[in-house]
Amino acid sequence: MSYPLLVSHFQQIDHFNHALSILGWDQAAMMPSGGNDSRSDAMAALSAHVHRLSTAPQLADWLAAAEEHVTSPVEQASVREMRRVYLAATALPEDLVVAKAKAGAKCEHAWRSQRPANDWAGFLANWQSVVALSQQEAQARSAATGLAAYDAMLDLYEPGMTSARLDQVFGQMQQWLPELIQHAQARSLAQPALQPLQGPFAVAKQQALGQQFMQLLGFDFAHGRLDISSHPFCGGVPSDVRITTRYDNDNFLSALMGVIHETGHARYEQGLPQTYAGLPVAQARSMGWHESQSLFCEMQLALDPSFIALIAEQASNAFGAQPALSAANLQAQLQQVRAGYIRVDADEVTYPAHVLLRYEIERDLMSGRLAAADVPELWQQKMQQYLGLNTTGNYRDGCLQDIHWTDGSFGYFPSYTLGAMIAAQLRTAMCRELGPLAAHIERRDLSPIWQWLQQHVWSQASLLSSEQLLQQATGEALNSQYFRQHLQQRYLG
Amino acid sequence: MSYPLLVSHFQQIDHFNHALSILGWDQAAMMPSGGNDSRSDAMAALSAHVHRLSTAPQLADWLAAAEEHVTSPVEQASVREMRRVYLAATALPEDLVVAKAKAGAKCEHAWRSQRPANDWAGFLANWQSVVALSQQEAQARSAATGLAAYDAMLDLYEPGMTSARLDQVFGQMQQWLPELIQHAQARSLAQPALQPLQGPFAVAKQQALGQQFMQLLGFDFAHGRLDISSHPFCGGVPSDVRITTRYDNDNFLSALMGVIHETGHARYEQGLPQTYAGLPVAQARSMGWHESQSLFCEMQLALDPSFIALIAEQASNAFGAQPALSAANLQAQLQQVRAGYIRVDADEVTYPAHVLLRYEIERDLMSGRLAAADVPELWQQKMQQYLGLNTTGNYRDGCLQDIHWTDGSFGYFPSYTLGAMIAAQLRTAMCRELGPLAAHIERRDLSPIWQWLQQHVWSQASLLSSEQLLQQATGEALNSQYFRQHLQQRYLG
Repeated sequence: MSYPLLVSHFQQIDHFNHALSILGWDQAAMMPSGGNDSRSDAMAALSAHVHRLSTAPQLADWLAAAEEHVTSPVEQASVREMRRVYLAATALPEDLVVAKAKAGAKCEHAWRSQRPANDWAGFLANWQSVVALSQQEAQARSAATGLAAYDAMLDLYEPGMTSARLDQVFGQMQQWLPELIQHAQARSLAQPALQPLQGPFAVAKQQALGQQFMQLLGFDFAHGRLDISSHPFCGGVPSDVRITTRYDNDNFLSALMGVIHETGHARYEQGLPQTYAGLPVAQARSMGWHESQSLFCEMQLALDPSFIALIAEQASNAFGAQPALSAANLQAQLQQVRAGYIRVDADEVTYPAHVLLRYEIERDLMSGRLAAADVPELWQQKMQQYLGLNTTGNYRDGCLQDIHWTDGSFGYFPSYTLGAMIAAQLRTAMCRELGPLAAHIERRDLSPIWQWLQQHVWSQASLLSSEQLLQQATGEALNSQYFRQHLQQRYLG
Repeated sequence: MSYPLLVSHFQQIDHFNHALSILGWDQAAMMPSGGNDSRSDAMAALSAHVHRLSTAPQLADWLAAAEEHVTSPVEQASVREMRRVYLAATALPEDLVVAKAKAGAKCEHAWRSQRPANDWAGFLANWQSVVALSQQEAQARSAATGLAAYDAMLDLYEPGMTSARLDQVFGQMQQWLPELIQHAQARSLAQPALQPLQGPFAVAKQQALGQQFMQLLGFDFAHGRLDISSHPFCGGVPSDVRITTRYDNDNFLSALMGVIHETGHARYEQGLPQTYAGLPVAQARSMGWHESQSLFCEMQLALDPSFIALIAEQASNAFGAQPALSAANLQAQLQQVRAGYIRVDADEVTYPAHVLLRYEIERDLMSGRLAAADVPELWQQKMQQYLGLNTTGNYRDGCLQDIHWTDGSFGYFPSYTLGAMIAAQLRTAMCRELGPLAAHIERRDLSPIWQWLQQHVWSQASLLSSEQLLQQATGEALNSQYFRQHLQQRYLG
């Protein structure tokens, strides 16, 4: 009977991950600066302990025995997800882990000053080792999982996804996206000038407004909090989800839309099944699925005209009426389309182009078809092709802009756009059953929407493969047409 | 070379204690109620891991070898403190730990409703097992340490202290305290009526006022925070000290004096030597020494008339002037003496009587000279003798009032009064060098005071025994006369 042993072992791992998660949240949201050294040491010790537990020698036998003997679908899924954790933890030789961590930390640290200095040559000197070590990592993960090299990296964030499948899905998008961007931007530029927001917007009022919308979106405050950090995120554990935002005195919309986005992440976490709490099978299916829930809240739900009317009303109540707070003006502001250099500032229409070019570059970096030194040239070509922008010589707003690659986190970017696609596909399927979202929003009763997501997504956790989950929820495989239709309808309709 | 192995092992333990400490703070100050079950499980897993590390089989050999070979006084002290941790962790058989934890949890849980119901008989039914198991614990700790039974419990909180020494020190106090209480109370009762505080005092203003005084008291906000919890405490780690308070809208003094008290604890933690950070020798000397620092801030420093003048000034600035905020009125309010039933509400003069009676009772409970069933009668006699109060039949405000005994935390109470005595003795020694505290307070430059404490107490951590530490700082052994003089001067002078 090895399955009960596995359950108690993985619950043990979960307890230490709980600690890591809360300590990480505290570090970002609460910790004074002087606490950082001892906190980092403590978190490193906890991480090392989690790694020890995840690579415990007895797991090999227990997993093999359980794979032979468990028969219920839930237990089979549970063992499959335990195997994934075990493979990911045991795939790399320790010297490679150490070498990559060192090279990554060095490169990331230097990047913090090299980016503002536009110093590509300096960055490249460090980054070449990071890329080489990441290639070794991809090879080692490939050997452990039987997946292709880049796919083995992708699998860390997006289990089951392959570059062959991404080439299809993103390849289709590449056909229609640049033109859609052009048209949407032209239309957006032709709009009458926006009424600018007249601040200041007091932080306490912004916070209360955010909490009102969290309430409307069903966030469970007995199992979570809202706080402040310099980079907004959703952390904590399913029974205690910690979301954060940051407040701009002159623009309440940035914090509010951030809160709505993070609340989408939070509802997924709060809706995960308690029956298997602490086991890998009870975790969110993937980064892309997680992003689908935040983007569902932000893009599918909150940008619906009926929801923007709510924002206009509540914001006017909170801050007093002003011309900028009309629903029409807010809608125009939140739906501006502008091709720009920076991914994190991009709108819903141009964002996928930023992801697409990163995917194509990192895929070829990992396979060795592309050399690190050649990244800027390719970046430039693709920015021109997808967004019509010239980035020649502008490394700081080009390939030096993201932190992800500096420490070798390759395979992460595609999840953003997979999430946007899944969100659009889920909305379409949901509306077939529930009718237009606007009807529910106008009644201020979103419970049918949450029930649908609870049943089709949250309660499913990692019981199914990503593909099966989407098939079961929407009746078909991933299909980028729903995302295209969504963008067309909103920006060209 | 076993000492370096010990150092790295105990640093490892420290990392997990860091996590426990921050998680405990979070549980009290931040966590939403629904997070409690998974938090408790996570903390139990971390505690079990700390226990495993503290009882690791290799420690026996490493400690024995280090005790043979280390020669520097610091390393000798360091090994001595490691041995203390090891002995405390290994002293008890696991079945006793489990049995006591269960009996204690059951008794404490039932106590929460038995106390309001004044149900001594119901409480006794559970408590008899807790006392019996605590006696077994005391025996086992006695066998491991060579100390007498009650002394082995005392040693967990107050290393080196014995009941023989406490009988002396508290015995002397017993001679003068009841009469001093009578006189101080009579004098306090003869004072003109107090001007009552006119609230409400907005929480945000109270918080800002507390932070002003933390600043004046040298709290390092780069290494700590002030937050809210239902029971004020000082937690966190030396590089990141978390103090808490609670706010009463009608009385800003309770939160403010609480903040000043906790700031005393915090400065001790922030002043511990970083050179040995993470090792047992770098920890505060004892509970009593910790309390000496909080009581130094609260009773020796903040109740000085010159400091109360500062409170009057800053409070008037914060809340607007009112008759209650005159220095004279605040002084009278903060120096009221009233014999009462409840320890936690007691003033500086009557508090030691509450501790004295608890010490005498728990000492005899642990030795078996006193049966659990006979506690109320003894309580009654001693309350009459020390405070002139009749508690017959009033269990809820008598021996059922504290949580400490419900789960068998015997040996803890004496530290409160040891702290008060040490604080008075330190102040006397300090003023021999620095002159009256008032001169420094009036200049609003307390740095000579902190330098003195840094040099004589904080930087010493657990390098010396408690006795040596006091000897070195004040030139003599613990002497309750300084506490007596302090009380006489303030309340009868």
